[in-house]
Amino acid sequence: MIVVLKSNIDSDKQLKLVEWLKGQGLGVHISAGEFRTVLGLIGDTSKVDMELIESLDIVDSVKRVTETFKRAGRSFHPEDTVVRVGDVRIGGGNFCMIAGPCSVETEEQIVAVAKAVKAAGANILRGGAFKPRTSPYDFQGLKANGLELLKIARAETGLPIVSEIMSAHDLPLFEDVDILQVGARNMQNFDLLNELGKSGKPVLLKRGLANTLKELLMSAEYIIAGGNEQVILCERGIRTFSDYYRNTLDLSAVPMLHELSHLPVIVDPSHATGIARMVPSMALAAVAAGADGLIIEVHNDPIHALCDGAQSLRPDEYDELAGRIRKLREALR
Amino acid sequence: MIVVLKSNIDSDKQLKLVEWLKGQGLGVHISAGEFRTVLGLIGDTSKVDMELIESLDIVDSVKRVTETFKRAGRSFHPEDTVVRVGDVRIGGGNFCMIAGPCSVETEEQIVAVAKAVKAAGANILRGGAFKPRTSPYDFQGLKANGLELLKIARAETGLPIVSEIMSAHDLPLFEDVDILQVGARNMQNFDLLNELGKSGKPVLLKRGLANTLKELLMSAEYIIAGGNEQVILCERGIRTFSDYYRNTLDLSAVPMLHELSHLPVIVDPSHATGIARMVPSMALAAVAAGADGLIIEVHNDPIHALCDGAQSLRPDEYDELAGRIRKLREALR
Amino acid sequence: MIVVLKSNIDSDKQLKLVEWLKGQGLGVHISAGEFRTVLGLIGDTSKVDMELIESLDIVDSVKRVTETFKRAGRSFHPEDTVVRVGDVRIGGGNFCMIAGPCSVETEEQIVAVAKAVKAAGANILRGGAFKPRTSPYDFQGLKANGLELLKIARAETGLPIVSEIMSAHDLPLFEDVDILQVGARNMQNFDLLNELGKSGKPVLLKRGLANTLKELLMSAEYIIAGGNEQVILCERGIRTFSDYYRNTLDLSAVPMLHELSHLPVIVDPSHATGIARMVPSMALAAVAAGADGLIIEVHNDPIHALCDGAQSLRPDEYDELAGRIRKLREALR
Amino acid sequence: MIVVLKSNIDSDKQLKLVEWLKGQGLGVHISAGEFRTVLGLIGDTSKVDMELIESLDIVDSVKRVTETFKRAGRSFHPEDTVVRVGDVRIGGGNFCMIAGPCSVETEEQIVAVAKAVKAAGANILRGGAFKPRTSPYDFQGLKANGLELLKIARAETGLPIVSEIMSAHDLPLFEDVDILQVGARNMQNFDLLNELGKSGKPVLLKRGLANTLKELLMSAEYIIAGGNEQVILCERGIRTFSDYYRNTLDLSAVPMLHELSHLPVIVDPSHATGIARMVPSMALAAVAAGADGLIIEVHNDPIHALCDGAQSLRPDEYDELAGRIRKLREALR
Repeated sequence: MIVVLKSNIDSDKQLKLVEWLKGQGLGVHISAGEFRTVLGLIGDTSKVDMELIESLDIVDSVKRVTETFKRAGRSFHPEDTVVRVGDVRIGGGNFCMIAGPCSVETEEQIVAVAKAVKAAGANILRGGAFKPRTSPYDFQGLKANGLELLKIARAETGLPIVSEIMSAHDLPLFEDVDILQVGARNMQNFDLLNELGKSGKPVLLKRGLANTLKELLMSAEYIIAGGNEQVILCERGIRTFSDYYRNTLDLSAVPMLHELSHLPVIVDPSHATGIARMVPSMALAAVAAGADGLIIEVHNDPIHALCDGAQSLRPDEYDELAGRIRKLREALR
Repeated sequence: MIVVLKSNIDSDKQLKLVEWLKGQGLGVHISAGEFRTVLGLIGDTSKVDMELIESLDIVDSVKRVTETFKRAGRSFHPEDTVVRVGDVRIGGGNFCMIAGPCSVETEEQIVAVAKAVKAAGANILRGGAFKPRTSPYDFQGLKANGLELLKIARAETGLPIVSEIMSAHDLPLFEDVDILQVGARNMQNFDLLNELGKSGKPVLLKRGLANTLKELLMSAEYIIAGGNEQVILCERGIRTFSDYYRNTLDLSAVPMLHELSHLPVIVDPSHATGIARMVPSMALAAVAAGADGLIIEVHNDPIHALCDGAQSLRPDEYDELAGRIRKLREALR
Repeated sequence: MIVVLKSNIDSDKQLKLVEWLKGQGLGVHISAGEFRTVLGLIGDTSKVDMELIESLDIVDSVKRVTETFKRAGRSFHPEDTVVRVGDVRIGGGNFCMIAGPCSVETEEQIVAVAKAVKAAGANILRGGAFKPRTSPYDFQGLKANGLELLKIARAETGLPIVSEIMSAHDLPLFEDVDILQVGARNMQNFDLLNELGKSGKPVLLKRGLANTLKELLMSAEYIIAGGNEQVILCERGIRTFSDYYRNTLDLSAVPMLHELSHLPVIVDPSHATGIARMVPSMALAAVAAGADGLIIEVHNDPIHALCDGAQSLRPDEYDELAGRIRKLREALR
Repeated sequence: MIVVLKSNIDSDKQLKLVEWLKGQGLGVHISAGEFRTVLGLIGDTSKVDMELIESLDIVDSVKRVTETFKRAGRSFHPEDTVVRVGDVRIGGGNFCMIAGPCSVETEEQIVAVAKAVKAAGANILRGGAFKPRTSPYDFQGLKANGLELLKIARAETGLPIVSEIMSAHDLPLFEDVDILQVGARNMQNFDLLNELGKSGKPVLLKRGLANTLKELLMSAEYIIAGGNEQVILCERGIRTFSDYYRNTLDLSAVPMLHELSHLPVIVDPSHATGIARMVPSMALAAVAAGADGLIIEVHNDPIHALCDGAQSLRPDEYDELAGRIRKLREALR
């Protein structure tokens, strides 16, 4: 850790700071420049409160030279992590196609969509049972019943299932769900992350609306620190000042997360754009950016099918997109 | 709700959309303009999925003309809500001064700070027992023990106490805490909000880092819909591209939340700026903007006191600030 | 234009507003709903000050139902615009590969890079002569001399040239430059846009750091309204809270700009990321998203070549990338 | 400047980088830590391209330890700059009240408003003659005629005048304007800044919509480096995801700019919020935050006066606000 002091500071204050740092068990290497003095801290700085030091009035700025994500970072774990769900592999060159409806509605619906996306090439089924909604008056999902319907669709198709968990309290209900999804709003629900760390089940961790890559990796670190390395990172759009689509899909996160971390990185173009007709181009772009998979909303609902549009693709649209993705992946090899 | 259709659309698709809307029990008023056709929906549109309609390819845009926050909104509840905690009143002209350390550390510390802030004019004591930290390796708070120490400080000073709750699972531990704080990262932890709605205890709800005022009010709506109207809103800085302070304190939220809602609105200048020497000017600005109170970090820690600075004020700094606030409030009458 | 009034408003104020609107030559269609009254304005609303109306205290919100970009928009100009520069075509299915150094430094440098990028498949040469720099103490470019060196490189290779113009005052110097680039910081330098509209020369218009798509199209509208439709739009990253790269490349802008406008859309992955090793993946993603071209920084500077990295690619890296792009475009057909 | 190298890098690459840095005339102090090696650069680093070094693949990050704004910064110029316009002083404890209409419309209008705001206590008159508008079809101002009308109002009231200049080309027209305003969209129009540096006239420099404080100060540096230290900084709101007001007024900028720079800092609550009824609370908050003045829109237009609202205050509203500001400033002493 490097501490840059301000110019013309009270030497007594500097001395006290150095002593306090040494009292924390750190070596302090003082380098007095022409304008500024720089302290280099040597030893285990992971416990040092960087923000506290930064806020001292004699300190200009502080810089950590080692990242604080150790288990999620690639430095100490160079090879790619491969997440395993039944026969499906995610990461390390294995591409996953997750698809399904936003919400599980009926057995008929989820089974029909599951069959359709499987036929198109999907290898994991998604479906929301517990739905986080901005308004308390909006539909909150079928909850436990929704999970049961997902399991029926899994039995019919053989596709592993992924569904969002909103509270550690619901963990027993997810005992037999293959992948547990943490939604964007819960990315820093540390209580939930801790419990998922203990669960040992694969976790699909979505990036929060305004979270940095470092914060995403620190949330993954919570899960891994609990003993569970089966974590899939998911970019799903960030909040900006965008005027024509819901969020801004941040595809630069894909190569950068691959550089920083060994965990697989997938992309959700459906939630990022909120507009079905933008999903194909953004899905293809995500593949070209190097994503390890895609999670895409697909429904078979005739009301939605009335006009094309909506956030979800129709099964025939997904089928066509899946074909284009295969062709693209072939070309990128 | 108003639905603006695109120009030159298929009349058959328009017809199907109108029929589908009528099938949802809505009246549809069609107004064909020179360039665009506009549908006015009449009836209970609160269940209508605005985003679904917006995403249809024949639709240009959708506009809701009635807000979806009913119980948190001022339209149906014109008079100010006053939150009551023991003898303390918040809102409706009652100003609250919440102060205390970021984390509860020892009995000696919390009692000393409590006495100091009370002497300076604070009427509520804050102290973190459960600490949400970006890194799993950072100090997570004294948890249940921290709450016990807070209660000792309350017994010694008579100040009601507020502390952050991170999970509905911990509610029994907070039985005897006066105000339950929901942190910025949990603003949309709907599971927690639902439980707080049932608890009936006063809630201090912090705005999330990238949440709109509407989303903040919808989260308050969750708590009120559960039967608990004792909600205090708190602006604590939003995430932007700022370069010299941690977050951007959004003081415009104060008058606008007062216009939109009947709930009290307080401001946290300590977390917003992350820099103690900025706290006094931002606290005064918050008062001038019309805030119903301030929540400010104060510590008596000799390590921090080494240099002035740090996010927290020293007791003597808080005392001086409290005097300036009183003078300012007098002038604003 | 639709004006939504607040509930329970003074009917006298409503009457005065309606009269004032009629006085502006508009028809006003009043539709009284259960909770809100909505005014539909009929006639030429392009001159109506939407923000003024929105700010009236009896008005809840205002919505324009026709876009204000007429000449840049696709509604009134459905077919793609093709920009022509010598034999090169941009847009309407024609892909352009613009490449070259950030700054023109010497004749030797620019000619060498021009030859290298041409050999790799580039069809337009870029090079900065007038450099906008945050600091007045940074290198500001070779200015007029730089343009002369670019022309030499054009003569040697036959590649048309593009360079940034920072002030209308410099237009005479750009007489013989093929494409005039407007940088992100000047996207709303309306004085410059007006002059470029009169110039009749192809313009490469970069999106500003925090500008919406609507604002970008309105800036294009300035140029087109001046009589010059040869405008190329360029997405080059927006400013967000990103922590590991300079800006956030907003690739969703590509399909959405194509939907909204007939103008060609290209992408600059070099400035968006600021990191050469991210350029290939973001360039491929831009192609997959449907971009009409790429503008990429390439240098042959041995200092840069010391380590790979830097914002600019080396010629061999660009050559490899160009091959991958061709393969990708083939697969996307 | 400090350069942090990545772990486990090629020692040959490190050696070449060090040699290259030394070749630039810098001293290089190498400090090998447990995990990372840190290079401390000694000498004149102001010419060193920080972004180039940061992008090298062996480099983790770079940190400048001395600010690059020298003349705008407080380090080398501790005492406050006082801007002088006739008898008016701005900064160094002198508070300015700038007021007037958004656009100059007629002689009658501008003279009436000038008299009204002077009576209320304003000491500088504002009025837009050249108007930057997002759309080319919107009213662009009375231009040269508008400036003439402002001068008439100045002659009638004795108030100095401030008006926005959009292009260096218009400088001769502004010969007799007291303060030249640079709008938010032109904050990085370096051509204009350079010319204003030479002009020697007081400049009111507005912060751009998405510009950092450092960038604002670097733009001031352009003007000062040209020989003109009479610069007033102006915070006018930044672009975020705000839902109920136009921009987010960043009042933390006031104390931080005062800490970083010796230049006066004023606030524009009218443009920041875009809503007249929010102007008083934000104006008071700006004063409490320590602003050196306010620039507020005031009109006397009966159309606007129809309803209260609009971005501009009516003269009677401004008069009332001015009284509250005086009372507040008294209390803050």
